[in-house]
Amino acid sequence: MKILIINGPNLNLLGTREPQIYGSHSFDKYFEILSQNFPQHQLEYYQSNVEGEIINKLHETGFSVDGIILNAGGYTHTSVAIADAIAAIKAPVIEVHISNPYAREEYRHKSLLAGKCAGLICGFGLKSYELAVMSFG
Amino acid sequence: MKILIINGPNLNLLGTREPQIYGSHSFDKYFEILSQNFPQHQLEYYQSNVEGEIINKLHETGFSVDGIILNAGGYTHTSVAIADAIAAIKAPVIEVHISNPYAREEYRHKSLLAGKCAGLICGFGLKSYELAVMSFG
Amino acid sequence: MKILIINGPNLNLLGTREPQIYGSHSFDKYFEILSQNFPQHQLEYYQSNVEGEIINKLHETGFSVDGIILNAGGYTHTSVAIADAIAAIKAPVIEVHISNPYAREEYRHKSLLAGKCAGLICGFGLKSYELAVMSFG
Amino acid sequence: MKILIINGPNLNLLGTREPQIYGSHSFDKYFEILSQNFPQHQLEYYQSNVEGEIINKLHETGFSVDGIILNAGGYTHTSVAIADAIAAIKAPVIEVHISNPYAREEYRHKSLLAGKCAGLICGFGLKSYELAVMSFG
Amino acid sequence: MKILIINGPNLNLLGTREPQIYGSHSFDKYFEILSQNFPQHQLEYYQSNVEGEIINKLHETGFSVDGIILNAGGYTHTSVAIADAIAAIKAPVIEVHISNPYAREEYRHKSLLAGKCAGLICGFGLKSYELAVMSFG
Amino acid sequence: MKILIINGPNLNLLGTREPQIYGSHSFDKYFEILSQNFPQHQLEYYQSNVEGEIINKLHETGFSVDGIILNAGGYTHTSVAIADAIAAIKAPVIEVHISNPYAREEYRHKSLLAGKCAGLICGFGLKSYELAVMSFG
Amino acid sequence: MKILIINGPNLNLLGTREPQIYGSHSFDKYFEILSQNFPQHQLEYYQSNVEGEIINKLHETGFSVDGIILNAGGYTHTSVAIADAIAAIKAPVIEVHISNPYAREEYRHKSLLAGKCAGLICGFGLKSYELAVMSFG
Amino acid sequence: MKILIINGPNLNLLGTREPQIYGSHSFDKYFEILSQNFPQHQLEYYQSNVEGEIINKLHETGFSVDGIILNAGGYTHTSVAIADAIAAIKAPVIEVHISNPYAREEYRHKSLLAGKCAGLICGFGLKSYELAVMSFG
Amino acid sequence: MKILIINGPNLNLLGTREPQIYGSHSFDKYFEILSQNFPQHQLEYYQSNVEGEIINKLHETGFSVDGIILNAGGYTHTSVAIADAIAAIKAPVIEVHISNPYAREEYRHKSLLAGKCAGLICGFGLKSYELAVMSFG
Amino acid sequence: MKILIINGPNLNLLGTREPQIYGSHSFDKYFEILSQNFPQHQLEYYQSNVEGEIINKLHETGFSVDGIILNAGGYTHTSVAIADAIAAIKAPVIEVHISNPYAREEYRHKSLLAGKCAGLICGFGLKSYELAVMSFG
Amino acid sequence: MKILIINGPNLNLLGTREPQIYGSHSFDKYFEILSQNFPQHQLEYYQSNVEGEIINKLHETGFSVDGIILNAGGYTHTSVAIADAIAAIKAPVIEVHISNPYAREEYRHKSLLAGKCAGLICGFGLKSYELAVMSFG
Amino acid sequence: MKILIINGPNLNLLGTREPQIYGSHSFDKYFEILSQNFPQHQLEYYQSNVEGEIINKLHETGFSVDGIILNAGGYTHTSVAIADAIAAIKAPVIEVHISNPYAREEYRHKSLLAGKCAGLICGFGLKSYELAVMSFG
Repeated sequence: MKILIINGPNLNLLGTREPQIYGSHSFDKYFEILSQNFPQHQLEYYQSNVEGEIINKLHETGFSVDGIILNAGGYTHTSVAIADAIAAIKAPVIEVHISNPYAREEYRHKSLLAGKCAGLICGFGLKSYELAVMSFG
Repeated sequence: MKILIINGPNLNLLGTREPQIYGSHSFDKYFEILSQNFPQHQLEYYQSNVEGEIINKLHETGFSVDGIILNAGGYTHTSVAIADAIAAIKAPVIEVHISNPYAREEYRHKSLLAGKCAGLICGFGLKSYELAVMSFG
Repeated sequence: MKILIINGPNLNLLGTREPQIYGSHSFDKYFEILSQNFPQHQLEYYQSNVEGEIINKLHETGFSVDGIILNAGGYTHTSVAIADAIAAIKAPVIEVHISNPYAREEYRHKSLLAGKCAGLICGFGLKSYELAVMSFG
Repeated sequence: MKILIINGPNLNLLGTREPQIYGSHSFDKYFEILSQNFPQHQLEYYQSNVEGEIINKLHETGFSVDGIILNAGGYTHTSVAIADAIAAIKAPVIEVHISNPYAREEYRHKSLLAGKCAGLICGFGLKSYELAVMSFG
Repeated sequence: MKILIINGPNLNLLGTREPQIYGSHSFDKYFEILSQNFPQHQLEYYQSNVEGEIINKLHETGFSVDGIILNAGGYTHTSVAIADAIAAIKAPVIEVHISNPYAREEYRHKSLLAGKCAGLICGFGLKSYELAVMSFG
Repeated sequence: MKILIINGPNLNLLGTREPQIYGSHSFDKYFEILSQNFPQHQLEYYQSNVEGEIINKLHETGFSVDGIILNAGGYTHTSVAIADAIAAIKAPVIEVHISNPYAREEYRHKSLLAGKCAGLICGFGLKSYELAVMSFG
Repeated sequence: MKILIINGPNLNLLGTREPQIYGSHSFDKYFEILSQNFPQHQLEYYQSNVEGEIINKLHETGFSVDGIILNAGGYTHTSVAIADAIAAIKAPVIEVHISNPYAREEYRHKSLLAGKCAGLICGFGLKSYELAVMSFG
Repeated sequence: MKILIINGPNLNLLGTREPQIYGSHSFDKYFEILSQNFPQHQLEYYQSNVEGEIINKLHETGFSVDGIILNAGGYTHTSVAIADAIAAIKAPVIEVHISNPYAREEYRHKSLLAGKCAGLICGFGLKSYELAVMSFG
Repeated sequence: MKILIINGPNLNLLGTREPQIYGSHSFDKYFEILSQNFPQHQLEYYQSNVEGEIINKLHETGFSVDGIILNAGGYTHTSVAIADAIAAIKAPVIEVHISNPYAREEYRHKSLLAGKCAGLICGFGLKSYELAVMSFG
Repeated sequence: MKILIINGPNLNLLGTREPQIYGSHSFDKYFEILSQNFPQHQLEYYQSNVEGEIINKLHETGFSVDGIILNAGGYTHTSVAIADAIAAIKAPVIEVHISNPYAREEYRHKSLLAGKCAGLICGFGLKSYELAVMSFG
Repeated sequence: MKILIINGPNLNLLGTREPQIYGSHSFDKYFEILSQNFPQHQLEYYQSNVEGEIINKLHETGFSVDGIILNAGGYTHTSVAIADAIAAIKAPVIEVHISNPYAREEYRHKSLLAGKCAGLICGFGLKSYELAVMSFG
Repeated sequence: MKILIINGPNLNLLGTREPQIYGSHSFDKYFEILSQNFPQHQLEYYQSNVEGEIINKLHETGFSVDGIILNAGGYTHTSVAIADAIAAIKAPVIEVHISNPYAREEYRHKSLLAGKCAGLICGFGLKSYELAVMSFG
């Protein structure tokens, strides 16, 4: 299967940003290991801090890949436009978060995306991505 | 008159995305016909999924065109920045929607843009754009 | 086509009431011109300040005319009963407003009717009615 | 001065309805005495249970009388259309209530009309009307 | 016993309007059968789409009949004035609905009338009226 | 027909608890009379103060009885789990209340169950149960 | 009768403060005229900007004067303690305002005091005080 | 590792209840397969419809097992007491749901438990449990 | 006097659960000492994690004991059914909490029980129970 | 121990004000008895209707006394400034109320102070103060 | 220029109160240094814990000084009366805070004063006052 | 010190856009003067209308500059993603606004960024930037 991982704003800082919440590993390193662990799948990775570029990527890939794993960061709580993009494409989208947003600030308790996604996995650190890949079979 | 049509996020998927709501025609094809129907006006078309690029386009054209027809898609409900841009430029802006947002999800019932626009037309399918062009005279 | 225009409360004062918002033309005069401009349609006009009479009119005509253009004035924001009437009849109803309610008081930002109407046109002065007629073809 | 008193829904029952709140005098009797006490003014009285008829009366008289005293009863809390009518006419409108609505149910604490009226007098029993007449000079 | 049934806005369309919700029988036909089934009671029937006329009818009959069965339709959710009329009269009022409003749109979940009524019966189709008649003894 | 009556928390105190609201008869005595009045039906009765036991009973009987009459007491306003149970079973459930909750404290105005029930009857004292039985035919 | 007028915060600035809202007369001058116009009453006047001093004055006089006219200024919208003082004393308190608070900012639409007062008069300029005196007989 | 799966109210009906949402397999059958698929773990299973019994089970096992997988059903949205129990024990708790609650009714969008759980997995059908087991290592 | 102490969910874990909030003493040990300190009273103790069992206990004892001290734990914030039980029995109920819920999470600031209890004591650690016993004389 | 009792607005009227809620004893008399009952403590008493004077007293004594018992009356629900003063001083503050505010008006259900206080005792009449003294040892 | 600094409740405790938030310097000492650093301005300083005294000071000085720097402490979030005073005087008022209220409790996020002030400076420790002085030129 | 000024959407129109609110100077001209006035600092300037590009710039510079002055325009009220970026970087960020948002529309009263910034300065026109630079020493 062809699976795309999309990371949204600030996730490029992983390993640098608030390590007590997000851990001290960079995503690039993690992605390498993840890919090796799932030789049966073709994994790809994209990151952008720009809401519209995430939408562009969802459009470009959303009719050809078998699944998308999306950590939309702060846009999770504010973007009707990304929610619309998820609803508009064919590939099922899994929402993931590294931390458990429900154990953090009130405004992180509401996801505008979750209702349009096939599933939601959060709170397992970087392992959230791994579980998401496994959800595809 | 010189009139610019700006389409926001996901409207590039028109014809592909949820056809039971948005219809099965692409906007490019529709724009061609629209232009032919209004030989007395000079129509132009721009689409972007990026909120800031829509603002850029409003700035670039908002002091020279005679009117702007804006379908801001999901940004309609979340973007104070686009609302500010509409208030900042000289050209009158008409908000349009293909579907009737008031007959859909609750969060589509509130437009942050409508109060800054000159007028609002929604629910007529692609004909909403045609009516908006006619509103200019 | 047979098209009925229904005006709700206070719209009989048009030309008298707050001319800076609603303009200084009476609706009767405007309706005369409107009818002449659309010789291909059979336009009729009805006005009442009584919520229940508007419902009566929607019932009487809603199974025989081809379309209804409704400016329900202040009832737009408070009448579940008119909304029910719109849903109960066969003719498509277009909600129109002379001014842009979203640029006015907060309590005018919520329409109880919009979700039951086929389309919504507002902010174009009396021209809103003209665009509504054109929406029928 | 020519002053019109308009009573809204259920005020025709005065003297019958919940006498512990509204007193046991009928309004007709009270109006007779009131008129005699103000020989310098020309007082008139109208009552209707129909929202739209109150609007009609405001329109008919609102450009010729010197002042209107309005007890809109339950419509005080629900009618945008009457509020619009008050704003649309020339005569100043004084909102009155026999009881003190702020000492009753929560939903009586919000008046949609008060912001459009020149003044508000409530809680003085039938004397509220007398004070309202005196407010005109 | 003398029992009055009052139907509010749009209920005159019964049998025509949204039959999947309200059924395909007209109320007039149903009322005939209902009357025959309760020869021990004197049943009467009134319908109006005008809020104030319903109040008028409550006043006229509310001190002489033994009970009133009220389906206020859309006014159920918006009319403080009808609620005041129910509180002002002597006859006990039973609120009925054909459909179950709690299984429909959010705004139908709040009744302004229920707190002033003696009892509430809803969701049994036209049988709701029959049960209401039986509640009187 | 086989009809089960389920009473929720505190209804075992009937006749003891706040008699000015709930009356002074115990439910057991009432149930005896009720059963005699409906010899054509097989009535059964269950009471529990435990939310989960009410759910258990709904599961056990909800696929075999012809109807369930449920007075869930305080759980009416707080139990998503009972609402889910009602939705999960086959037998239609009628929500009943002895008093009229809409005439009592604000927090009794919202029923989490009503939207999942077939019908709702309240405010008729113990007669609410009788009307509910009659609703089955 | 002995009647005390209490003015709250900022009303000492009358004639200076925002004259387009409050007029250009000082209250001292107005009080002199008011006293002369009502020779049959013994009027007294007190002003303080301190919430607790207004409470002190209500306590000191609230069991001996025949009535109190209170313009609590900004404390109208925030003081549970003054509301408690009004409820605790014997003399009836009339709430007055010079301007119509319901035609101003949203936060001036809610009075914490009104429910504890005997009556409310607002919007008549300084004449509000005169009407309040007249309300006592 | 020793891992306990706790299912809350109505999940005993799995396979029977609303199969379009929850699927048509019973949980017992699924648990058998699940146990076989994870021979390296010691899996146990408990179901109760009673909120307090779920708390009891969390207490009994929460200091000895290595992890708990909890699908609290309807209690997810209403139980502070279960949330307290999760916070009180040592074993990490993973919240799972078969369906995606964020794509269902509004009241299922708020979990009182999520903030106290280590992680959350939902929307994958019965596979949600499998992913939860995998999250432990 | 005969006084019953009822502890709700999770209070059986006292001494184990979050000792920084609830202290490290078990309640059984504390109850022994408490009983010795009040030889003039007959103290009894009951604990359950099941909402309905707490209601059962309130019913069984609420007409014979002289007072009840209730720490309902998490049910404090969610149980209308326990609030109803408190209102239904004769014995006065004192609500106690070990910690100060108002200094903790927002959702612990609202007690559904407090309005039905005779008094409330919280924040004194286990001494809250001692003060509650002393409140009885 | 040195313990200060501070009473806020309107509590000087105790014995006079609404005796059905607050009892008919003056606080001075009660304080005399209280002091005699606790010869081991040095009790002092202060009352003011002025919010800022209560803050002054908290500052003056808050670093030298062993504890403060505060009944802030109406300021309980509105004063962030007193809450700040409680947080700023060293002495623990116990919030007390004579009546049970949770059984009264809605706006008395929220205390801005409780979260900053060490403990809360309410509903025991004047005995609330006695229990508060006992809480200190 | 003549500039007055007004500090509200609890700011007299500066250096004593919660030093981790407010620092360990007293304001008197700081004011001395501040005055020396701005020899071109005539700085004055006033502190009160009493809301009404702050209003008095604003009145006394608000028509003669060139600017006022106001740290209203807890009254920032609750005082309509101070907001009215700011609007009533001529001198521009700058709102300052030592800490950043937006990074603290929710109830500190709303300032009733900010909308009436010329500017707002917060979060710079005592330097906030220095920047405010510099804002005057 | 190295200080970066970031301006968000629509601030490129400064001097053109709503001059009665924002003044008639362009920011480029102002920046030149600002740089000359602070020769001891190294000032840099960046503007973008794209939310994600502002985040990119915060990432690129947030670990090397000594401070950032951010006027995020309309994104101030809607961007969790920018707030996250501010929290993720090392450099302290000062939020500035030219106008006073608290004196404008309601939706400008809430800043999502302020709680993550070190300080906030607004309402001083372009001088807000100058004060922000001075805040760094």
